[in-house]
Amino acid sequence: MQARYFSISAYPKGLPDKALFELQSHALPELAVDEIRIRNTWLSVDPYMRGRMSGAETYIAPFELGKPLDGAAIGEVIESRHTRFKVGDKVRHMAGWRDLAQLKGDVVEPLPDIEVPDQAYLGVLGMPGMTAWAGLNRIANLREGDNVLVSAASGAVGSLAVQLAKAKGGKVVGIAGAADKLAWLEQHDIGAVSYKGKDTQQLSDDLKHACPEGFDVYYENVGGTCLEAALNNLKVGARIAICGLISRYNDETQAQGPRNLANLLIKRARMQGFIIFDHWTEYPHFLEEVGPQVAKGEIDYEETVVEGLESTPDAFLQLFEGGNRGKMLVRL
Amino acid sequence: MQARYFSISAYPKGLPDKALFELQSHALPELAVDEIRIRNTWLSVDPYMRGRMSGAETYIAPFELGKPLDGAAIGEVIESRHTRFKVGDKVRHMAGWRDLAQLKGDVVEPLPDIEVPDQAYLGVLGMPGMTAWAGLNRIANLREGDNVLVSAASGAVGSLAVQLAKAKGGKVVGIAGAADKLAWLEQHDIGAVSYKGKDTQQLSDDLKHACPEGFDVYYENVGGTCLEAALNNLKVGARIAICGLISRYNDETQAQGPRNLANLLIKRARMQGFIIFDHWTEYPHFLEEVGPQVAKGEIDYEETVVEGLESTPDAFLQLFEGGNRGKMLVRL
Repeated sequence: MQARYFSISAYPKGLPDKALFELQSHALPELAVDEIRIRNTWLSVDPYMRGRMSGAETYIAPFELGKPLDGAAIGEVIESRHTRFKVGDKVRHMAGWRDLAQLKGDVVEPLPDIEVPDQAYLGVLGMPGMTAWAGLNRIANLREGDNVLVSAASGAVGSLAVQLAKAKGGKVVGIAGAADKLAWLEQHDIGAVSYKGKDTQQLSDDLKHACPEGFDVYYENVGGTCLEAALNNLKVGARIAICGLISRYNDETQAQGPRNLANLLIKRARMQGFIIFDHWTEYPHFLEEVGPQVAKGEIDYEETVVEGLESTPDAFLQLFEGGNRGKMLVRL
Repeated sequence: MQARYFSISAYPKGLPDKALFELQSHALPELAVDEIRIRNTWLSVDPYMRGRMSGAETYIAPFELGKPLDGAAIGEVIESRHTRFKVGDKVRHMAGWRDLAQLKGDVVEPLPDIEVPDQAYLGVLGMPGMTAWAGLNRIANLREGDNVLVSAASGAVGSLAVQLAKAKGGKVVGIAGAADKLAWLEQHDIGAVSYKGKDTQQLSDDLKHACPEGFDVYYENVGGTCLEAALNNLKVGARIAICGLISRYNDETQAQGPRNLANLLIKRARMQGFIIFDHWTEYPHFLEEVGPQVAKGEIDYEETVVEGLESTPDAFLQLFEGGNRGKMLVRL
């Protein structure tokens, strides 16, 4: 059986060119004992994958040139030599960027039993959702009544972060770009501030207008101007959770950092980076808390879906151009 | 009785000019009930005072133009209408930058009863010492065996920080400039790295050489190149306590921030600013722990002493030129 997959031919500088991604195919070997074969139905593309294309070891190994890329995916078991799985089972695993995956059963999870569409386990109830939850609760120590600022607030992570924060009763403000994203925030009674065309001073002023008393928590996905503007609007004792710095991922040289870091001192504030894999043991806890709210429709989540394996690189590259509202997904 | 004091005539930009500081005098009024009069014997000058000369409200009110400056001082009671104090008592208070102080007794503390020279209560057992202790223990959560990096490591704060860290058994490295400061560090078995004439890459390489496995804790007094080099040498889960950013205090424009802040993310590290006044309720605890060690000579502390009230501005300005080893003091 032939499987098709994407690989990259070189480690890109700057925004990757689409031609970097090569669609290849290979014949799958016979299933070995304990292996299963999966037909993928949904693939995830995520900003963190850009880091794996740098060739450098960070907190995760770089992608190997010429080998299948990977990432989260959902599929259906079509063949099994593992006692835990039978044909037809729906599963989640890390062999994305391909149509067919062949894996040891012990690195594959059955989908949890909650009444949500399968692809929710790649977004609101998957890694991005868990990232929003852990960043707020475990890194930023979100408390009742906290005023919370979220950048990339309509993205896969940010769109859950604003809703979880809102449930704590404080003022919540989201930074986004496109008009439809700002409108989505406003529909959910989240203060919506555009970053488009603004320098730090203008964005700072707009955040101050949206929340004059300042923020207890800043959930950071972007970096750059957003971070500087946030640092200008902290309350004393504020906590900043750094989930990502997407504005910097394609920089060819090291961008300048925030000029107003002294605000950490003046406001006795804390800034902490985190990697969701460190917190994955808490996934069942997250699922128990947030899963039912999603099933009942109390939490809104958006998806941006592109069709077909061939479109996976486009989906990935759109992440850096603000092309997604909510979770960016590829449907096979 | 005439008292002499310093005031400033304007809020300076950049490094203050000595002419900014005006020595003035005024007649002290008769003592009111509950007041005491103090002849100051030691005055403290500290980097944080630069912030009070900016005219902006930060975490502490700006100095008022034309009014006596203030800061920590030690003196002897020469007249008292307060039941708690009698003539001859040695006290600590915040009416520095002057020869005679007249204050309500309730803002004055008797010197603690530990066998150390009076001026130690302005340095190793005063605000700078408490700052070193609280930054390590309460902000950076110093643990047994931690590798610790300290910038301005021979200063009033840094020189205690390196010794407290060393006692925890890990590798301790200090950044300093002058040869005598580096020698002082080496005498105490602290790794000594000079920042002089180095860019971030060179300083990073030297820190890596001094402690290849990286640092669990960075005690930050300086900012700029030191911070960038430290961010390049963090262990996973590192904690950065930001006590001060002296390299930036005289900047006329906002300096660029660290270009490698993404290391907070990669290393899941935490950076937290703090102001010692928030932790002052722990001063008795600090004194109980560190006081006996200083009295027994187990902790070494250095002083740089200038003579006479007139020299106070010089003493202050030398802080920004690396002119002090240990605590900078003015003896009256």
